[in-house]
Amino acid sequence: MDFELKTVSEQSRARAGIISTAHGQIETPIFMPVGTGGSVKGIHTRDLKEDIEAQIILGNTYHLYLRPGIKVIEEAGGLHKFNMWNKPILTDSGGYQVFSLGDIRKLSEEGARFQSHIDGSYHLFTPENVIDIQRSIGADIVMAFDECPPGDADYAYAKESLELTKRWLHRCFQRFNTTMPIYGYDQSLFPIIQGGTYADLRKSATENAVGYDADGYAIGGLSVGEPEAVMYEMTEVVTERLPAEKPRYLMGVGTPVNILESIDRGVDMFDCVMPTRNGRNGMLFTSEGTINIRNKKWENDHSPIDAGGTSFADQYSKAYLRHLIISKEMLGAQIASQHNLAFYLWLVKEARKQIIGGTFAAWKKEMVQKLNQRL
Amino acid sequence: MDFELKTVSEQSRARAGIISTAHGQIETPIFMPVGTGGSVKGIHTRDLKEDIEAQIILGNTYHLYLRPGIKVIEEAGGLHKFNMWNKPILTDSGGYQVFSLGDIRKLSEEGARFQSHIDGSYHLFTPENVIDIQRSIGADIVMAFDECPPGDADYAYAKESLELTKRWLHRCFQRFNTTMPIYGYDQSLFPIIQGGTYADLRKSATENAVGYDADGYAIGGLSVGEPEAVMYEMTEVVTERLPAEKPRYLMGVGTPVNILESIDRGVDMFDCVMPTRNGRNGMLFTSEGTINIRNKKWENDHSPIDAGGTSFADQYSKAYLRHLIISKEMLGAQIASQHNLAFYLWLVKEARKQIIGGTFAAWKKEMVQKLNQRL
Repeated sequence: MDFELKTVSEQSRARAGIISTAHGQIETPIFMPVGTGGSVKGIHTRDLKEDIEAQIILGNTYHLYLRPGIKVIEEAGGLHKFNMWNKPILTDSGGYQVFSLGDIRKLSEEGARFQSHIDGSYHLFTPENVIDIQRSIGADIVMAFDECPPGDADYAYAKESLELTKRWLHRCFQRFNTTMPIYGYDQSLFPIIQGGTYADLRKSATENAVGYDADGYAIGGLSVGEPEAVMYEMTEVVTERLPAEKPRYLMGVGTPVNILESIDRGVDMFDCVMPTRNGRNGMLFTSEGTINIRNKKWENDHSPIDAGGTSFADQYSKAYLRHLIISKEMLGAQIASQHNLAFYLWLVKEARKQIIGGTFAAWKKEMVQKLNQRL
Repeated sequence: MDFELKTVSEQSRARAGIISTAHGQIETPIFMPVGTGGSVKGIHTRDLKEDIEAQIILGNTYHLYLRPGIKVIEEAGGLHKFNMWNKPILTDSGGYQVFSLGDIRKLSEEGARFQSHIDGSYHLFTPENVIDIQRSIGADIVMAFDECPPGDADYAYAKESLELTKRWLHRCFQRFNTTMPIYGYDQSLFPIIQGGTYADLRKSATENAVGYDADGYAIGGLSVGEPEAVMYEMTEVVTERLPAEKPRYLMGVGTPVNILESIDRGVDMFDCVMPTRNGRNGMLFTSEGTINIRNKKWENDHSPIDAGGTSFADQYSKAYLRHLIISKEMLGAQIASQHNLAFYLWLVKEARKQIIGGTFAAWKKEMVQKLNQRL
């Protein structure tokens, strides 16, 4: 994997670059649609490529390990073959999912023992086997196994948790560096920088991660309940300590405004379930603000969902989409998801243009105002 | 509306023709995807047109009247504008749906009083207002309001029900002939021929319907629980008494084999929820037989769903589709629905070719054998 930094904004930390992987290039800043169980909910692979113009999608180790299971993915020849997505894939390590299980997981130095949310069966994730599983899945970018403490973790908890995450990171790299890719192309391992809401822990985590000279770095444990200002502050504490020549990925973030603010603070990669999950509930993100399509005010609005939108789905009318969402017709969820993902991809593409053109700061300011409106 | 009969098979009643409507031509025999509430479940309008190559779709008066309501559809400028489907539409009258409501509907000479399945509110459908509603929806082909007796109705019930349906048909035509289309293009009213499983009632119903010199005729009240042989017998009793120069529509039928057998008996038009509903449950119809994709045997079958299929969705693998259906991922329902509809459309298109080529009988025999297989 290679990262070429093209432009750094003069007024901020915003950057434009190009990541090159075995499955093609990714122009940053980029948003990565989430395909947890091997599919982006409601979206055909073809539309993801040709209409939404996604450049990289996510998969999740935890979900794919449980279902369909690693054997099936290996027999398919890796996740790219399994889901027909021949562009870059990133897999999350499952750390976040396992720790979200709460009572049905138990932590030890060795790893995390947990019960499947599907059938209650027992499993153990360790830094080593999570790397092995991600070798089997075959993502271009794989994530280290970490502990993700809650957003309100106190200092002692966050510190202890971070120490464990550091030891696990070491084991991840040991395993990664002593194993080979299965499908003949390179994979890259990104550390996940934790540290809760404590600047000194975030600094320490960053210095530790940078020591591995990784292909890229992820910021984890944010957007998990802490105030937005704290999220931005922690993001900045990390990005200002990361090497400029490597991509930075802020995990699980966020709203369109969160994304612009984080780009402004030097982040290159994002993922979030928001465009699909909120879409299924009838929330649309547009360049003029958000729309709750369930509102009565759209009942007889026969104008397109987003007249200036880039997706074919933007041409359906608001009244029609409202009808579909209220009637719980599948197509409603499909249209809203397709629109929202296309909008997120448009947003980062436009941000990139503005960074390269030197107009990012002014554009961002104007966009944030519009994006904060409720239509 | 115009119907041109191109070919009648020499060995059977199978026919190939062309229906011309204000929204374009329909090559018969044809299968019409069901878009009950204004959308074909799981399918984008664009894919319905370009991938599945549907030529006409259905809407349902009962569902559309309740939601989004006639006012919204009128303000959109009719259903074609509302759902962006600019090809022909047929609306069922709601008779079947109202009678499916059971306890929450009450029948009288005037019409059917019923409670909404959505909010329990009271409504009255009469032959007159059902025509009015279908004027508002603006379908190219609208259906008469009828009573649909259960498949096991005794003779007395079926006879009494048919007499009511005949009186209602008269009122439907009176209303239809004294009202104008709202959106400036012609609409056609098809009578629905009832009579349960009783040949003499079916004959009487057919003679009565033909008296109206309608643009086409529908056969209703079949595939509602009676044996298949009876369904075919009743279909033939009707089709042999219908004028050759008008299209015949067998409502709510059926499996691919049902469709070929009914084409053989002179039917031109079909609709059924089976390709989408069974698809959502993981049942695939293919030219080699049916597949229950949930079966363990497909777990590691990485070959395409249907290597010879016409849809882009046929290129996903069986193992991937199985994973999606079992994981209840929306995309699974979308892929299976898309495949099944494309297959149904392929089937009737191929039947048409064979009828025109004079090879329908032999082809049908071979296809029925294959279609009856479980893979």
